[in-house]
Amino acid sequence: MKTINNYIEHTLLKPDAKETDVLKLIREADENRFFGICINPCYVQFAKSNMNGKNIKLVTVVNFPLASNTIDTILFQTEEALKNGADEIDTVINLSALKDKNYSKVISDIRKTKEICKDNNLKVILETDLLDFDEIATASKCAAEAGANFVKTSTGFVKNGTGAKVDDVKLMYDTVKPFGLGVKASGGIKNYTSAVDLINAGAVRLGTSSGVDIILGEKQNV
Amino acid sequence: MKTINNYIEHTLLKPDAKETDVLKLIREADENRFFGICINPCYVQFAKSNMNGKNIKLVTVVNFPLASNTIDTILFQTEEALKNGADEIDTVINLSALKDKNYSKVISDIRKTKEICKDNNLKVILETDLLDFDEIATASKCAAEAGANFVKTSTGFVKNGTGAKVDDVKLMYDTVKPFGLGVKASGGIKNYTSAVDLINAGAVRLGTSSGVDIILGEKQNV
Repeated sequence: MKTINNYIEHTLLKPDAKETDVLKLIREADENRFFGICINPCYVQFAKSNMNGKNIKLVTVVNFPLASNTIDTILFQTEEALKNGADEIDTVINLSALKDKNYSKVISDIRKTKEICKDNNLKVILETDLLDFDEIATASKCAAEAGANFVKTSTGFVKNGTGAKVDDVKLMYDTVKPFGLGVKASGGIKNYTSAVDLINAGAVRLGTSSGVDIILGEKQNV
Repeated sequence: MKTINNYIEHTLLKPDAKETDVLKLIREADENRFFGICINPCYVQFAKSNMNGKNIKLVTVVNFPLASNTIDTILFQTEEALKNGADEIDTVINLSALKDKNYSKVISDIRKTKEICKDNNLKVILETDLLDFDEIATASKCAAEAGANFVKTSTGFVKNGTGAKVDDVKLMYDTVKPFGLGVKASGGIKNYTSAVDLINAGAVRLGTSSGVDIILGEKQNV
């Protein structure tokens, strides 16, 4: 296993985050050699201009967190985020179409978004708190068929949701591994132990706002 | 006071809402003679095509619920929603700029959005759960100065948030009344009693998913 810092996308998606919070996030990600930061689209340009020379990837979210946008808005957001300097895009799957079993629409939305992303990674958030095991497997297959690079568990914004669960990550890993996709676990990852459990279940990325605490926990375990 | 049905925007913003849920929302709004429905942008076109001949307004949300979008995305979303048939737009105020006391940016974002709306009502969600009284008053003044038509309390998506509170609505009402704006209370409005309390505090619109229960409560009180 790589050291745990390499898995972490240091995440700040609070609606009232200030510029100073974004600068702190970048500083912490740099100091701890995290994989990257994950921020809202309104901060991509600002963050990019403050990441010069730092070896951190810039991840942002579209159609987030309610999967409430039209495909035209999703494509606009994606194109704008890449233009503003995002390295990777995390989008929420079309949950309405998934629940309506309209899989061609689910796949088509992801495929169109991936076409905009080109070589930039596209992750598809399944929002596992709202899905049963069959739906998680189906959604994972749709993401794979559409050419996404990762499936991701959670937005972290479901009311009373638990976020990333080991069993869900295992199922997602088993489903997408044959197609070469990775799994990002996210939502409710608060400490080193749960981070390691999710990595052992198959996650190669962790989306968390507790990255600094996780690193402290790692040091105590060494 | 008008009968309470006239205040209600029958609201469905769940990420996994299906087409049948939207049709049920329209039917209930029609049967109960609600002011309108409030739905996610991805359903505006579908809802519009199922509201022919019905006396219900179509309200949708942009920059919702995290105030996470760039102004270009907000304007794109607004223009698209109106083109797809929305009558009114509920947008979330730039919370980051508000917290940073960058009021010219707060006002500029609202003003640009209102320019797209033209004669269609624009409501500005303050997200009162994240603000103190001073910030609520300042945000209300910004909305008034920028030409918005309403201020609105809540998205309903703040973790552990309480949503519409009587004291907040009173403050918003007192602040915007001289400028001719209305107040929409939203978030956590579950029954007739709380609906009446918010109307008495100054709300002229209620955003709630409990409209049918509120009407039942009204009948029991008559």
